[in-house]
Amino acid sequence: VVKGIGDDCAIVEVERYRQLVMSMDTLVAGRHFPDSALPSQIATRSFCTCLSDLAAMGASPQWFTLALTLPEANREWVSEFSDALFAIAGEFECDLIGGDTTQGPLTITLQVHGFVEKEKALTRDAAQAGDLVLVSGPLGDGKAALEFLLNQDSFPMLDSSQLAYLVERFYRPEPQIEIGRRLLNCANAAIDLSDGLLADVQHIADASKVDVEIDLDEIPLSDACLSVAGGNRQAIHYALSGGDDYHLAFTVSPHRLSMIKDLIKETQSSRETLAKLSVIGRVVATSSGSPSVRCFEKGNLISMSDQKGYQHFAS
Amino acid sequence: VVKGIGDDCAIVEVERYRQLVMSMDTLVAGRHFPDSALPSQIATRSFCTCLSDLAAMGASPQWFTLALTLPEANREWVSEFSDALFAIAGEFECDLIGGDTTQGPLTITLQVHGFVEKEKALTRDAAQAGDLVLVSGPLGDGKAALEFLLNQDSFPMLDSSQLAYLVERFYRPEPQIEIGRRLLNCANAAIDLSDGLLADVQHIADASKVDVEIDLDEIPLSDACLSVAGGNRQAIHYALSGGDDYHLAFTVSPHRLSMIKDLIKETQSSRETLAKLSVIGRVVATSSGSPSVRCFEKGNLISMSDQKGYQHFAS
Repeated sequence: VVKGIGDDCAIVEVERYRQLVMSMDTLVAGRHFPDSALPSQIATRSFCTCLSDLAAMGASPQWFTLALTLPEANREWVSEFSDALFAIAGEFECDLIGGDTTQGPLTITLQVHGFVEKEKALTRDAAQAGDLVLVSGPLGDGKAALEFLLNQDSFPMLDSSQLAYLVERFYRPEPQIEIGRRLLNCANAAIDLSDGLLADVQHIADASKVDVEIDLDEIPLSDACLSVAGGNRQAIHYALSGGDDYHLAFTVSPHRLSMIKDLIKETQSSRETLAKLSVIGRVVATSSGSPSVRCFEKGNLISMSDQKGYQHFAS
Repeated sequence: VVKGIGDDCAIVEVERYRQLVMSMDTLVAGRHFPDSALPSQIATRSFCTCLSDLAAMGASPQWFTLALTLPEANREWVSEFSDALFAIAGEFECDLIGGDTTQGPLTITLQVHGFVEKEKALTRDAAQAGDLVLVSGPLGDGKAALEFLLNQDSFPMLDSSQLAYLVERFYRPEPQIEIGRRLLNCANAAIDLSDGLLADVQHIADASKVDVEIDLDEIPLSDACLSVAGGNRQAIHYALSGGDDYHLAFTVSPHRLSMIKDLIKETQSSRETLAKLSVIGRVVATSSGSPSVRCFEKGNLISMSDQKGYQHFAS
């Protein structure tokens, strides 16, 4: 950083063998978090969900900018928000270098910036027929957390550790930065799971012009998600279309399975305790002009439109 | 641009001898533009005001990102907004490379990115005692335009060309990119005038640890501004504290006056028809620990707190 906050612009330098990777995300009160969310929760959720996009490219975080729109100048609110933001940004060694503060309905826009070695970034368009499809951790938690936060009295069966787990998954989802970095030399395509597995894997299929087959039985699910969903079927449904999970989905050549196995072993003791790689499917050559994602249960193809509970994926 | 819209992040390359310059700005409906503003007007105002920060650093625009929060998916609105945005961005050869679209109260956040030769950027902290202070064009128009837009029936004395001029100054202020670039090898400090001359020049004074003296008689004013203000005194008041002018204020060593005179001659026939450089003051060594901005009228020091009409600058 040549110049951070305090002038008309921030100035930064990019080293010769690196490329700059950027992503911008907006969170609107009452839409991307409940109006009851604490300033510190809003800060960590905003930062972590935005950083997740850098993880999906295999990029190392460097700096971020913040546009904060607030209904009123509430010093206490701003102080809580800032403390939490600087704390979480510090964990990822990511510096605030600029932004804007305005008055209006509560809205947070962040832009995160990272570096990646030239031409090494993980993208959506590089999946190859024959690749395995993996995810970096349990899916469906984002949706389960939201269900819980919106109807807290409806889930008396959750124990306190499950409650804490879900609240944390919503307000401090772990950006899979370390996994992303390690995938740089072994994965083909990658994406972060913000819209739900089906929609996000479809992005890989479309960009790479391949079909993807998912084994529903292999999707990792947490106990908390299973509890909120009230069973396996609904939990799978959360995973497929709930969104907000911020794990990575990626594809690797089976030749690299040993690298991946080592990585799986390492992640089990990693700092990112939620990261636990699972193989959930494979990439196949597309049989038509329109790449598709197909799901299997115990080896049988599931028709998304016919299957009760999956119907809203038909459109 | 290695990768633009369509993946988790945008990827760009920065050449070896260049630095990356960035600025982020938010515009909130009803606050930074009237609720009655057309989508095309909102687009050009958002883009031009944000780009003005790059001008103040002497940077050349490269790319921008857009976070657009909209109350509803209104195809016609989005189409008008996008057409105008791509048109104005095209004029400055600045490409959209990413962003986010969300639902919520109408808010636009832009981040603009530009290049500048290493260590050449214009900053606020490089003014030297002895420097002349210049501005790139008439001041007070931003405030005059706002007065007119909020009370259109109160100004029957304005002719149609003055109306058109003021509306354009508000919705399509000219980012002084070309002037900024030319100042790289001759100006010391620079800033863009978004908060009003007094506040912005105070930023230069604070950052450079110098005092600044302004000759109020030398501040350039447009006929339209004088008409809306109802006279010279109020027009000066608009210039000093109205804000939203998006001209540059900068300081140069008197040894470079001949370079500046050439530049003044050129700007009179330049594409940026509103750019007309004027010397309005000078930088002096600060006499105390707290750098200040002093104003003179016909050579007499004006006391901002005593002077009727300037009183609200006292605080």
